[in-house]
Amino acid sequence: MDSKTIGILGGGQLGRMIVEAANRLNVKTLILDAPNSPAKQINASPDHVDGSFTDYDSIVKLAEKCDVLTVEIEHIDVEALKKVAQKFPNLQMYPLPETIKLIQDKYLQKKHLIEHDVEVVESIDVAENSVDALLAIGDQFGYPFMLKSRTLAYDGRGNFVVKNKDSLAQALEFLKDRPLYAEKWCPFTKELAVMVVRSIDGEVFAYPTVETIHKNNICHLVYAPARTSDTIAKKASILAKNAVKSFPGCGIFGVEMFLLPNNELLINEIAPRPHNSGHYTIDACVTSQFEAHVRAVAGLPMPKDFTQLSTSTTNAIMLNVLGDSVPNKELETCRKALETPNASVYLYGKATRPERKMGHINIVSSSMEDAQNRLNYILGESESIPSTLASKEKPLVGIIMGSDSDLPVMSVGADILKKFGVPFELTIVSAHRTPHRMSQYAIEAAKRGIKCIIAGAGGAAHLPGMVAAMTPLPVIGVPVKGSVLDGVDSLHSIVQMPRGIPVATVAINNSTNAALLAIRILGAFDYKWLDKMSQYLNTMEEEVLGKAEVLEDIGYEQYLSEKLKK
Amino acid sequence: MDSKTIGILGGGQLGRMIVEAANRLNVKTLILDAPNSPAKQINASPDHVDGSFTDYDSIVKLAEKCDVLTVEIEHIDVEALKKVAQKFPNLQMYPLPETIKLIQDKYLQKKHLIEHDVEVVESIDVAENSVDALLAIGDQFGYPFMLKSRTLAYDGRGNFVVKNKDSLAQALEFLKDRPLYAEKWCPFTKELAVMVVRSIDGEVFAYPTVETIHKNNICHLVYAPARTSDTIAKKASILAKNAVKSFPGCGIFGVEMFLLPNNELLINEIAPRPHNSGHYTIDACVTSQFEAHVRAVAGLPMPKDFTQLSTSTTNAIMLNVLGDSVPNKELETCRKALETPNASVYLYGKATRPERKMGHINIVSSSMEDAQNRLNYILGESESIPSTLASKEKPLVGIIMGSDSDLPVMSVGADILKKFGVPFELTIVSAHRTPHRMSQYAIEAAKRGIKCIIAGAGGAAHLPGMVAAMTPLPVIGVPVKGSVLDGVDSLHSIVQMPRGIPVATVAINNSTNAALLAIRILGAFDYKWLDKMSQYLNTMEEEVLGKAEVLEDIGYEQYLSEKLKK
Repeated sequence: MDSKTIGILGGGQLGRMIVEAANRLNVKTLILDAPNSPAKQINASPDHVDGSFTDYDSIVKLAEKCDVLTVEIEHIDVEALKKVAQKFPNLQMYPLPETIKLIQDKYLQKKHLIEHDVEVVESIDVAENSVDALLAIGDQFGYPFMLKSRTLAYDGRGNFVVKNKDSLAQALEFLKDRPLYAEKWCPFTKELAVMVVRSIDGEVFAYPTVETIHKNNICHLVYAPARTSDTIAKKASILAKNAVKSFPGCGIFGVEMFLLPNNELLINEIAPRPHNSGHYTIDACVTSQFEAHVRAVAGLPMPKDFTQLSTSTTNAIMLNVLGDSVPNKELETCRKALETPNASVYLYGKATRPERKMGHINIVSSSMEDAQNRLNYILGESESIPSTLASKEKPLVGIIMGSDSDLPVMSVGADILKKFGVPFELTIVSAHRTPHRMSQYAIEAAKRGIKCIIAGAGGAAHLPGMVAAMTPLPVIGVPVKGSVLDGVDSLHSIVQMPRGIPVATVAINNSTNAALLAIRILGAFDYKWLDKMSQYLNTMEEEVLGKAEVLEDIGYEQYLSEKLKK
Repeated sequence: MDSKTIGILGGGQLGRMIVEAANRLNVKTLILDAPNSPAKQINASPDHVDGSFTDYDSIVKLAEKCDVLTVEIEHIDVEALKKVAQKFPNLQMYPLPETIKLIQDKYLQKKHLIEHDVEVVESIDVAENSVDALLAIGDQFGYPFMLKSRTLAYDGRGNFVVKNKDSLAQALEFLKDRPLYAEKWCPFTKELAVMVVRSIDGEVFAYPTVETIHKNNICHLVYAPARTSDTIAKKASILAKNAVKSFPGCGIFGVEMFLLPNNELLINEIAPRPHNSGHYTIDACVTSQFEAHVRAVAGLPMPKDFTQLSTSTTNAIMLNVLGDSVPNKELETCRKALETPNASVYLYGKATRPERKMGHINIVSSSMEDAQNRLNYILGESESIPSTLASKEKPLVGIIMGSDSDLPVMSVGADILKKFGVPFELTIVSAHRTPHRMSQYAIEAAKRGIKCIIAGAGGAAHLPGMVAAMTPLPVIGVPVKGSVLDGVDSLHSIVQMPRGIPVATVAINNSTNAALLAIRILGAFDYKWLDKMSQYLNTMEEEVLGKAEVLEDIGYEQYLSEKLKK
């Protein structure tokens, strides 16, 4: 596709997956790393360089054969890289050496982001590795706080939680002579991440906002999209894009951030390369983070929206496969994944070692609940995510009523939804007594993932029509019978909507049918519900046929007298 | 993942994509083909064998290093393969040599399938390559008929259409001394294909039924799933599975078939290997045909349903990229694909040559219409598929009414659907006068892809409720005002359904709202319609605000008098 040759510093799993993407596009890649490193295994070129990606001479050997240099790791000797750039003025380097320099020192990274008005976790440089210096920080930040190595830290290595004054000496001992900085304690509710790819023109494209779950400081699971409101996902996406815009050059960046209890978002850190939190893109997006990186650094087209999920119903979970203390035992997890439809296994061609990233598993489905069930099978009982911690299922149907006096009628419909296993929410929203709450409910429902609203109301019964006027979702109206007029007042109020705003009206007091209609609406696009509805119709038919048989059998007089006894 | 080494006879694009899938699973592969063949490029093993996959000695060299042998092409010397099998009794070979033998001779293949009660195109062996022999066939089959080489035919090479008696000599000249058979002319309406993978236990798994479109006898496009009814797709799947069940051994098979005008399906031919019609699986399914093949021949798990589409809304189109008469001009098409979100490009690392399969492009989307639009952009104006030939859009909404006297009311709703661009169908279905037609309509609607039914009826107005009783889909009822009772009779008939069967009732004569409600139902799961509905609500609001401004501006007396003038 492109005549440029891309040299990659580092041939681990990230380099390997970049090579895979480049292979598909006939883009030539060459690797600098040890012989037979994962990336070299899948690229039969005789021109790879054996050596270290931190060694100037080796980089020169690679650079001689390439048009573009890129990295799969940021722990590069930036000075060596700059010298190489001087030696080969026509060589392109993405990320730029100055970007790597800014990012590989986490304290400089944070300072840089603050200078560009990007919200980050509050940090202070540790001027001197002494207990006194840390005491001053403890006074300022309070305890606990995080003490971190500015450089060469990853997967939690180089981090220390300073619980109180007594642990300061221990912290200094643990982090020895490394350059340090301190971070204010950040009591996040979730960790989110966004892969962002930047074109050479400075245009940035964000992949979906995802949720990351760490175990022993190593990425364990990634949920894509994140199980948050669309507003938070959107805010995270904007924050990540703004952060990446502040770094010149091009290529893919991983942006990790914290979601705080007040819904504020703070950037934790940025990686100027493909990232573990973006492995889900291989299966959940048409263009993976690796191909996006190849396109960016090779100057290939990057159209608007090319980083979106494959379909509007794509949900994915990524599970990291770490080396077990028993060699190759991790393959048992992979085997379980192969037994699971909708899961795919990626192994990196690395020798097994405890806690080493050996591979990952992607699970893709139309629903996150389904993906979670498949994940739990793969993890096995002892490791599986309990449903309380697992994705709390987003409600698909919202039941609202004007007053709690409508609850006896409306609860019957709620029971039906429960019986079918449809996630729903139920609350009071009054058109006349809480008009602003009603507007908010109607306006936000679609954004929150609600697919259909059931509104019950009596008398003048304005709730269903007013909600329908403020949402593009289907609204089902249940006329609730009042003390006069037999509910015909509510029926006409609900059904006789003017042209332009429909309310799907069901029979008076019949919230059962409202719930069944909601399930039919879900079933129009999701076979799961369609199947359940077909079964329900069959069961009803069988019940009536059963009664008919008895009636024919015992005769109508006896049938009637038995029915009256009940 | 597995300690077995798989040897592949042939290192073209199919071998390359098998290797890619095996690489992801850390399954070791070795290739027998020319040096630097496409498959070898992405597998840095020093143990590949340079040579021909038809040469006994070369196969022996490969077999010495492998546990399993497989093929990417069926044009293998079966006798050589059998000798190799004798020499290496522990070596597994999939497909089995006898399967390759049965399949590589297309006439034997058809005979074998007929013996196993699998429907195929009617064929006769050509006993002798003479005009007389062909005349006898012409008498039996009539003209035109197909004259085909029994062996070594692919991409239309080795086929000749015998139009009449006068072209018999020409046919013999064209096909020279090849072994021939004749096929009855098959006036198909579509070509369908199904990839089927068979496990070593003989269990078969079908990928979705797809539609293939050929150009100059070479596969041009693949639509997945096929744009046919679910019944035909299901029948095709069963036919393909039955065909593959008849061949022992394991691995992936490509089954091509014809759909006839009477909806009968006949098998055209079978390939015992990955197939061009299955390339869409790389992006549209979690497990590609190539991984399925690796799993089958390596004895890795193959769970139920692992061959399904990634999500319930996945639609895909595959476009083959053929070499242009101007070298590398085909890369322009690839570049346009890179400019298209939701498209991915696969190039095979082959030297450009006219008509050569250089690569393919997969397009994935939630809707086939969207995928088609993206394809048309990639093909460019001169090549793009006109909408009449393109996927005739399946109706999403069905409008039915009891009588043509309801049409003036119901057509207003149809106009709304047209305005929004919703594909719909409209017809007369009477509950009382065509009860059987009504049942059939209701029962088949969901299977045909209808998401929502709008039923209009007056008077006793049984149609909406009766249809709702026989479909799990949401049914919207429009009460049509009759000559007496102002439509309240129809309203109550439609809305007062018993518990168990809901009808979403709208206002009397208000088919506008029925159509808008249908669009809201579509929008609950497809953002395209949700967005359009939001815009519609905004437009209505702006219109009313505009009127309010004029009213406030010119005063109510003038406003009224101007309104009366209209």
